[in-house]
Amino acid sequence: MSDAAIAASVVPLPIEEVAEKLAVPAKAVYRYGPHKAKLGLDFVSTLAPTGKLVLVTAINPTPAGEGKTTTTIGLGDALSRLGTKVAVCLREPSLGPVFGAKGGATGGGRAQIIPMQDINLHFTGDLHAITAAHNLLSALIDNHIHWGNALDLDARRISWRRVMDLNDRALRQVTIGLGGPPNGFPREDGFDITVASEVMAILCLADSLQDLEARLSRMVIGQTRGRRMVTAEELGGIGSMVALLRDAFQPNLVQTMEGTPALVHGGPFANIAHGCNSVMATRSALALADVVVTEAGFGADLGAEKFLDIKCRQAGLAPSAAVVVATVRALKMHGGVAVKSLGIPDVAAVKLGCANLKRHVENLSKFGLPVVVALNHFTSDTDEEVAAVAAELSPLGVSVHVCRHWAKGGTGAEDLARAVLEAIEKPSDFRFLYPDALPLAEKIETVAREIYRAERVDFSTAAAAKLKEFEAAGFAHLPVCMAKTQYSFSANPLARNAPSGHVLPVREVRLSAGAGFVVALAGDIMTMPGLPSAPAAHEIFVMPDGFIAGLS
Amino acid sequence: MSDAAIAASVVPLPIEEVAEKLAVPAKAVYRYGPHKAKLGLDFVSTLAPTGKLVLVTAINPTPAGEGKTTTTIGLGDALSRLGTKVAVCLREPSLGPVFGAKGGATGGGRAQIIPMQDINLHFTGDLHAITAAHNLLSALIDNHIHWGNALDLDARRISWRRVMDLNDRALRQVTIGLGGPPNGFPREDGFDITVASEVMAILCLADSLQDLEARLSRMVIGQTRGRRMVTAEELGGIGSMVALLRDAFQPNLVQTMEGTPALVHGGPFANIAHGCNSVMATRSALALADVVVTEAGFGADLGAEKFLDIKCRQAGLAPSAAVVVATVRALKMHGGVAVKSLGIPDVAAVKLGCANLKRHVENLSKFGLPVVVALNHFTSDTDEEVAAVAAELSPLGVSVHVCRHWAKGGTGAEDLARAVLEAIEKPSDFRFLYPDALPLAEKIETVAREIYRAERVDFSTAAAAKLKEFEAAGFAHLPVCMAKTQYSFSANPLARNAPSGHVLPVREVRLSAGAGFVVALAGDIMTMPGLPSAPAAHEIFVMPDGFIAGLS
Repeated sequence: MSDAAIAASVVPLPIEEVAEKLAVPAKAVYRYGPHKAKLGLDFVSTLAPTGKLVLVTAINPTPAGEGKTTTTIGLGDALSRLGTKVAVCLREPSLGPVFGAKGGATGGGRAQIIPMQDINLHFTGDLHAITAAHNLLSALIDNHIHWGNALDLDARRISWRRVMDLNDRALRQVTIGLGGPPNGFPREDGFDITVASEVMAILCLADSLQDLEARLSRMVIGQTRGRRMVTAEELGGIGSMVALLRDAFQPNLVQTMEGTPALVHGGPFANIAHGCNSVMATRSALALADVVVTEAGFGADLGAEKFLDIKCRQAGLAPSAAVVVATVRALKMHGGVAVKSLGIPDVAAVKLGCANLKRHVENLSKFGLPVVVALNHFTSDTDEEVAAVAAELSPLGVSVHVCRHWAKGGTGAEDLARAVLEAIEKPSDFRFLYPDALPLAEKIETVAREIYRAERVDFSTAAAAKLKEFEAAGFAHLPVCMAKTQYSFSANPLARNAPSGHVLPVREVRLSAGAGFVVALAGDIMTMPGLPSAPAAHEIFVMPDGFIAGLS
Repeated sequence: MSDAAIAASVVPLPIEEVAEKLAVPAKAVYRYGPHKAKLGLDFVSTLAPTGKLVLVTAINPTPAGEGKTTTTIGLGDALSRLGTKVAVCLREPSLGPVFGAKGGATGGGRAQIIPMQDINLHFTGDLHAITAAHNLLSALIDNHIHWGNALDLDARRISWRRVMDLNDRALRQVTIGLGGPPNGFPREDGFDITVASEVMAILCLADSLQDLEARLSRMVIGQTRGRRMVTAEELGGIGSMVALLRDAFQPNLVQTMEGTPALVHGGPFANIAHGCNSVMATRSALALADVVVTEAGFGADLGAEKFLDIKCRQAGLAPSAAVVVATVRALKMHGGVAVKSLGIPDVAAVKLGCANLKRHVENLSKFGLPVVVALNHFTSDTDEEVAAVAAELSPLGVSVHVCRHWAKGGTGAEDLARAVLEAIEKPSDFRFLYPDALPLAEKIETVAREIYRAERVDFSTAAAAKLKEFEAAGFAHLPVCMAKTQYSFSANPLARNAPSGHVLPVREVRLSAGAGFVVALAGDIMTMPGLPSAPAAHEIFVMPDGFIAGLS
């Protein structure tokens, strides 16, 4: 059965009933049809977070899959079954992967958020609003140059690209303004996917409409010919951007297949941005529920580090525990097994691959977080393999919990849920990896050393100079946002498991002044994916009764 | 007081109450917040049109303004006040003009549809859905070429451009696919504004989800190197496009400031497309109300002709009457008065300018429609000027009705409403201007001769050859969609009033095989507007309470 068909097998609760579970007053529920809603800004602005926050993260991803989103949903449903007042906080999907290779972002099996078709397609329009706001600024930039360029913008140094919420490689690098004077001045440009927009990062980090406006105003869009940084505010359209984003800024409420409230809001790229759902949603959930389960992008080296050092730092959040998701199959891959041999029991490879898992667990303890391991179960896993994982983790004082939420829903994750409930009662000692005051280069070096286990960082001359420039311009206090391959602790995507002693090359750094971080690029980072030769777009269709088939 | 402030002065009815006025069952009302809804496709698919359709059109627009949308709304409110079960059908706004010079499309003064901010910004996401569906096809085209180009598409002959729902001149002409093999093959491309997309025209002409899919499949996106026309279907993503458009295909329900139901759905360009709201909305309204008031784009020479010859032909609709909107000020401009002198009474100029109005009235009678003239009142109009208009129209047997809905709402258009109620009871003799069977060139010549009063049509060699090509390819039966300046009966925008004996140059023709018409371009037609030096985007902002100010 397809995910879409499984999702369609349950009758969703009216969204008002889901809201009631969180005691959201009816007038704060801004409905989008019977099963989706936004929570009114008037209401959420009054909320103060009091609940406990649980982060779901993972080992370095492999083609074997790990199931971070399904674990987040399954854990939420299991906590709900155990009587906890819980909400899950997830990112919203982008149309790029939906029509490309990766698929949607609503979980799978019996661990899904619904209505899955709506969420995976336009949902409540947040990504479209971000696209429009971002590209309005782009149009204002070229319009400014066209009508006299009073700011003396250097067309060669405009860093603000355009965006599109699709996978479209042909738009990565373009020339615009061709065709003569009526069409403006020709210049080089390019499109990123919308989730890579700084507007998306800002929407996810702002904690009020005023903060949203202030952050948008601070964005640096390029330089003058005299090399002065030009901010978005100088283009004069921030009010219009806020107007376009006003509704999108309100958290979305949906539900899991088992009726657990899910706040699904925002979804910034996990490489050049911080990769987690919005602060507005997380803060709202922490006010409305006793326990909030959320996830971060990629593996813990990237996703969890950014969640903790960027999002939690900016939003004043202190998580109570972390769950690291692994699978026997993925550990085998870290242990050297090829995809085609994953079905063959191999305890030795599992033990070897546990080095990846153990390092993530150790890293998370550096943030002072209690850690629990979720072993997402596949039918091909043997008892010996599962026991090997538990045995490997035992010396770290970390328990391993086999999860079957994909097949069974919340009931399959109750063991994990009980462990999490125990973990969040432990005394918390949450701390950031580095202080605000550390120079930018040293922040990067700290992450490389403590999390990636690199021997050193190799800054390009340009990157080193730019970091000095950013510090001189008043951005020394910002956290760093590492853009590195998700597949390895190192910058080499082929170096699985637990490499150490490597050199982290930082070739380029970028300032996201509105989002409030400095991006360090360690390797080639793609901000506009392409479609595969057989894209998912070829398989999706609408049935005569209106049911959308082919989404996963 | 601004339009936004006037609109905010009334408390809107809950959208459920508006739906009740049309006896729409609650389960067919798919709410987007408290004051917007979509009508479920399941429900509207069952409806059969029975009401009477009234078209509001206008003289050729001038900078003096005429007020077609406000008249449509005011007439709806007036009919409602007189006890008629009425609905208005309007087009939805595009973000381009909202942030550019023209502003929104929700009327003005006391004749507005609400919530005006929502409708003028994202509304229910229809335009975003069209943008996504259109650009997904674009991405699939370049992806197809990238992965081997099995169809042997000629990259120089791809007519399917990309779209963006903004005014952005820099995107009119671009080169894409730059940067080497990973980014595809470089080629020339360009962006149109979303409302110019054939997908928009199709969404507005399709009468079922199946028809929508069939029309999308038929669209011609370019040619092979062997000059074979390639259809969208061959790219393999039609199902995904329909999935993206499924919700957008459902008509939107809002209300006027006086609580009259308004179906606001679709908004194709009025030059390269037919310029009226969706068939789904109009048919639904005609089933749910006794009288439906709708408008067409530009003046009657373009908007009404296309409404009648394209939309009514394709949808099997027969309007019962037409209202031609004029103002004393605009008639003065047609009579030769400059903008700066419009405040000076000038009965002679008004009489002279009535030639424009009279010709539109005569033209509409060629379609067999009873005609009523609405004279949209400005405080500077003198009684003598108003009397002159009535006197000029009297020989045609057409009554002139002064309207004050902008200042007074529905009560200001009751006189017009009574005249319309009389007109729609007259025996109807509706007919198209030309039969399907007429060759394409002769259809163009018929419109030029009968409506524009041109002496002849001057086809370029290329245009004449393409018309033959389209006919040979099986498109001879299609109606023609004239793309001509809106400011004149001729192709010269400076030739106001009632020019005749002119030559209509048709330089280029294009096939919209999915929409189902052949576009004839008479003059330079802009499909991607630019922003002015002081765009509206500079004046829009969000107040601390969330109110969006600066929209008009």
